[in-house]
Amino acid sequence: MGRIVDLRSDTVTQPTEAMREAMYRAKVGDDVYGEDPTVNELEEYTAALLGKEAGLFVTSGTMGNLVALLTHLKKGDEVLLGAESHIYYYEVGGVSALVGALPCLLPHRDGKILPEDIRAALRPKSMHFPNPTLLCLENTHNRGGGTVTTVEEMEAAVECAKEHGLMTHLDGARIFNAAVALGVEAKEIAKHVDSVQLCLSKGLAAPVGSVLVGSRQFIARARKWRKMVGGGMRQAGVMAAAGLVALQTMIERLKEDHGLAKKLAEGLAKLPGVSINPDSVQTNIVVVEIDCKSLGAEAFVQQCAARGIKMNLVSDNMVRLVTHKDVNEQDIDYALEIFAQVLCK
Amino acid sequence: MGRIVDLRSDTVTQPTEAMREAMYRAKVGDDVYGEDPTVNELEEYTAALLGKEAGLFVTSGTMGNLVALLTHLKKGDEVLLGAESHIYYYEVGGVSALVGALPCLLPHRDGKILPEDIRAALRPKSMHFPNPTLLCLENTHNRGGGTVTTVEEMEAAVECAKEHGLMTHLDGARIFNAAVALGVEAKEIAKHVDSVQLCLSKGLAAPVGSVLVGSRQFIARARKWRKMVGGGMRQAGVMAAAGLVALQTMIERLKEDHGLAKKLAEGLAKLPGVSINPDSVQTNIVVVEIDCKSLGAEAFVQQCAARGIKMNLVSDNMVRLVTHKDVNEQDIDYALEIFAQVLCK
Amino acid sequence: MGRIVDLRSDTVTQPTEAMREAMYRAKVGDDVYGEDPTVNELEEYTAALLGKEAGLFVTSGTMGNLVALLTHLKKGDEVLLGAESHIYYYEVGGVSALVGALPCLLPHRDGKILPEDIRAALRPKSMHFPNPTLLCLENTHNRGGGTVTTVEEMEAAVECAKEHGLMTHLDGARIFNAAVALGVEAKEIAKHVDSVQLCLSKGLAAPVGSVLVGSRQFIARARKWRKMVGGGMRQAGVMAAAGLVALQTMIERLKEDHGLAKKLAEGLAKLPGVSINPDSVQTNIVVVEIDCKSLGAEAFVQQCAARGIKMNLVSDNMVRLVTHKDVNEQDIDYALEIFAQVLCK
Amino acid sequence: MGRIVDLRSDTVTQPTEAMREAMYRAKVGDDVYGEDPTVNELEEYTAALLGKEAGLFVTSGTMGNLVALLTHLKKGDEVLLGAESHIYYYEVGGVSALVGALPCLLPHRDGKILPEDIRAALRPKSMHFPNPTLLCLENTHNRGGGTVTTVEEMEAAVECAKEHGLMTHLDGARIFNAAVALGVEAKEIAKHVDSVQLCLSKGLAAPVGSVLVGSRQFIARARKWRKMVGGGMRQAGVMAAAGLVALQTMIERLKEDHGLAKKLAEGLAKLPGVSINPDSVQTNIVVVEIDCKSLGAEAFVQQCAARGIKMNLVSDNMVRLVTHKDVNEQDIDYALEIFAQVLCK
Repeated sequence: MGRIVDLRSDTVTQPTEAMREAMYRAKVGDDVYGEDPTVNELEEYTAALLGKEAGLFVTSGTMGNLVALLTHLKKGDEVLLGAESHIYYYEVGGVSALVGALPCLLPHRDGKILPEDIRAALRPKSMHFPNPTLLCLENTHNRGGGTVTTVEEMEAAVECAKEHGLMTHLDGARIFNAAVALGVEAKEIAKHVDSVQLCLSKGLAAPVGSVLVGSRQFIARARKWRKMVGGGMRQAGVMAAAGLVALQTMIERLKEDHGLAKKLAEGLAKLPGVSINPDSVQTNIVVVEIDCKSLGAEAFVQQCAARGIKMNLVSDNMVRLVTHKDVNEQDIDYALEIFAQVLCK
Repeated sequence: MGRIVDLRSDTVTQPTEAMREAMYRAKVGDDVYGEDPTVNELEEYTAALLGKEAGLFVTSGTMGNLVALLTHLKKGDEVLLGAESHIYYYEVGGVSALVGALPCLLPHRDGKILPEDIRAALRPKSMHFPNPTLLCLENTHNRGGGTVTTVEEMEAAVECAKEHGLMTHLDGARIFNAAVALGVEAKEIAKHVDSVQLCLSKGLAAPVGSVLVGSRQFIARARKWRKMVGGGMRQAGVMAAAGLVALQTMIERLKEDHGLAKKLAEGLAKLPGVSINPDSVQTNIVVVEIDCKSLGAEAFVQQCAARGIKMNLVSDNMVRLVTHKDVNEQDIDYALEIFAQVLCK
Repeated sequence: MGRIVDLRSDTVTQPTEAMREAMYRAKVGDDVYGEDPTVNELEEYTAALLGKEAGLFVTSGTMGNLVALLTHLKKGDEVLLGAESHIYYYEVGGVSALVGALPCLLPHRDGKILPEDIRAALRPKSMHFPNPTLLCLENTHNRGGGTVTTVEEMEAAVECAKEHGLMTHLDGARIFNAAVALGVEAKEIAKHVDSVQLCLSKGLAAPVGSVLVGSRQFIARARKWRKMVGGGMRQAGVMAAAGLVALQTMIERLKEDHGLAKKLAEGLAKLPGVSINPDSVQTNIVVVEIDCKSLGAEAFVQQCAARGIKMNLVSDNMVRLVTHKDVNEQDIDYALEIFAQVLCK
Repeated sequence: MGRIVDLRSDTVTQPTEAMREAMYRAKVGDDVYGEDPTVNELEEYTAALLGKEAGLFVTSGTMGNLVALLTHLKKGDEVLLGAESHIYYYEVGGVSALVGALPCLLPHRDGKILPEDIRAALRPKSMHFPNPTLLCLENTHNRGGGTVTTVEEMEAAVECAKEHGLMTHLDGARIFNAAVALGVEAKEIAKHVDSVQLCLSKGLAAPVGSVLVGSRQFIARARKWRKMVGGGMRQAGVMAAAGLVALQTMIERLKEDHGLAKKLAEGLAKLPGVSINPDSVQTNIVVVEIDCKSLGAEAFVQQCAARGIKMNLVSDNMVRLVTHKDVNEQDIDYALEIFAQVLCK
């Protein structure tokens, strides 16, 4: 087959040579006994990076969020989260099925959570209402199109949550994209929330894994929930070694992904049959509306795929493109060429 | 204390003399063994009235809805229901905590469910999404202000649901209010749904109880879930007897409640500091907006209560008034007088 | 049909004339608003009778136990209870399905819980084990054959539980049978446990209902769980009125049931093909082993039923007979006659 | 520190050089899209090895069992499993907390499940009992002391289960130890069960991972539950590569572990203060009773640990020792020496 440009997600990134070497050489032990030195190092390193006391290595962003929710919430509690948040939208309903908490959906404001929306969602104490207990944020926001919530906006939401007695969890699957876009350290973004989940395996290109961070006591309790869902692993240091390389060497280069996403958006803006505002592209995700009379979004995705350009449909008329370390400027040029051919037929 | 006009809910209605006598004389047996003749009669009578094969006596509307959801849904399924539906809003999050199903919230269209909203909410099959399984409707709609969904609108929603492989449950806590308002039999409204819950204890004035109806097989399964939640009772015929009186003698008089609600709305519309369109009042519920500079909705409710007029706050600026058999025309006149005094101070 | 002697359970008892009159006259209000004076009276009366701060009216023993478990336990906790306890054996697995707590089964010692069994069941703290949180006792014990745990035995078990940080719940469905058999007040039995569920509808003959008692704070939390499972009712005073009559007039007469059970056991002991030690019969339940070559226990139950004597099979070769207010000495004589006929054929 | 002999578990095994190389070279893709060739190969290889249609890579034995239970069972079902099975005993109560199924505990017969115990546990259909749905077996059996269930015994249990309409799951964490001990292929052991979980990370020494196998349809459904619990990973082929090496090269050498375990047991049998029958040691697990007046089991474990011999306490007076690839004959001799010193002091 010819050239492939995979823009479906930054999850498709291949591990780097340095990661493979680190995995090969990793010192490992039995992490269920707490004896894997590389896992311990990754957990401590990540906690420090995020300004929290402790960390917990998990196998995926979904597991990180699930374990956080299981730790924060009891059955019959209420959790406030965005109507288009990854936790609500893409995690198979675990919040209800496994956690037993009622999702209270806040309006989708390009992925930001506004204090007034929190206040409006909170109901007076009543026997009819579950106990509101936790607010979840997501930064950057996947379905928002990689949008960034600023440090100030984070603070405003978290402060409002705390005023009303809510704990806070940040789905920071792509927190380093936010940090790079804002030009701040990730710990600034995470400063006021009680827990953060961040992924090693998206733009940072580690093969597998996420880390959940929070207070020492929170992580101790989370460790037991991780065991229950089957996330307790043995010589997990082989994966943690790649994760350390990801955190130590791959954060700064996210800028390049953002640059390519902007280039992609600008190219798309010039094409007929699609609708996009390049200014809305803040990180490595581009969401474009297909409004071509002769071609639906699904057909567009299929025809491009047949020519080697892979993308994901995110709704009836919206297509998502994600840049990452395994696409370069030539790939973007090539993709734009194919788009032009498909759209102008 | 002086005159009390209790407009908080039709749930406050006192049982009638005929109900008390029926309870006194009821033939009873052990319903866990299926041997209570009065319970059996009520279940059969209700099923026939709603055009379904079988019925199940439960202690409340919440239990009827919960048992229906437990029977229709497995953990990890998705249930479509209105964002302001009673099941989602007022039933303490049991849909997540006890059923384990993810609520998918449809936009609040005065309590109606539109086919286009169902279609928009359904997502393509994916490993990331729970299985959409059930659509819940509510008629009349409590938070919609007692609004009625017509037979045709019911049919359109249910047909759309069935096309997409969804089962359907109707929260018919006040289905007879809908039937009376539409001038049809309740079974017309319930015709196409798989299950219905209806309350004996609201406008119909029975002291306690609801009935869940559906196919024989559905009710057999529901009976076991009722046992698990503790709804299996012994000589429940004492309550069922009052329920039979309610169904046999109290439906037609709901018209009077609707007339009083209209009168109330028209009276309120003439007052300053409140906002209401009397045409929006379709049954026995009146929701009025307090937009008085000197008096918030909460203060309005408190000051009226101090003068004997009881109402419920349903949001920051909205107050709900419900008419029922224990208020009459003089009570409404009196309430309007008090409102005028409180609002014009 | 001829004479019927129903020995299946004390749940089949018909309400008395005094109960029917009390229901007829009951002052009622909306109990969801806390305004039903008769419910309030029953809850206070029962709490006082059991020496606890507060009570909660529920529709069944199963609901009382379920609500207690939901209030005491979080998902992922462990509950210690007898391997043959009603909560584990007869309540449809709600402890797992709705509460999400792991049952840790203590050996069946005729229904008693021994401190050494508690100690043996408790495991060291570990990430692999759920948190042991609650001990459940049952007095009298249904599957034990109505056996009584003494006040001293209760104290020993509860003290051991408390030493190990466990809360305690008593399934006191038949606590008054225990109290009468021991010649103590029920509050002596309940003295040290955190919560008790007791039934109004078994030997006490009320048509419907149980009461859960405990500390004021516990009951406040339980009230919300009762709402979630659908146990929040409106003019529930009609049932509570019968419950008050039951508590005020029916406790002492349980002695008669105990006497009849003893008579039944002594009569059975003289028959061929059955095996029973009359000394083991402590209250109103008789469990007898059928060891007849020509007749299995199931056939025995069926042939007796065909002659009007109703009983329940409780295992392959065991039959349970329960005495109650609706059987008298003549009924017992008649039943023994029938047994003799069936067994000696 | 001096010489360490770690006999706590075979989970402490370090990955081999071949595994590290395989991880280094692994071809990987995004497994959530089904595109990781190494994961696909491992899943197919394992399914073929076990005689099943399809496989699913998971991160741990606990996750494999949890996902199997979530797939087989609905909330409110009943699952039959051994009172000392790993699923019930060591998996944090997930069967209740996450699956919502009631555990029905079969007597511990050195880890075997007998048909008569299945039959005795099954109750007649009743509204009071949850639906019995699944039987779980475990072979070899951890708390049984690595005991083996023969192919014939497996068949008898599974046949009995099927006759009564139960599905069957095998916790085959150490199925290859059973196969090697019995001298049969693992697929013979797994022949009649519906699903099997087997570990790559115990005696087989892979760093991480288990595989769940079953019918194609079962695995398709399991894949979604794996996603919900957070077991959906991206470039998981790095781990799967090590798993393939484990399956392809490490099974036969389990014999050596069994030989060492036998040697250990025979050595222990000669020592004072301990009680063990070497004939009971069937695979790589040795459970020994400490019955020394001057030294409890806990002290024994601690004093040996201080001298470099690590073991696990499994109850008040029982100690477990496990042999594996990272201990050799000299280690066993050394351990026996230390035991002699500690015990004879």
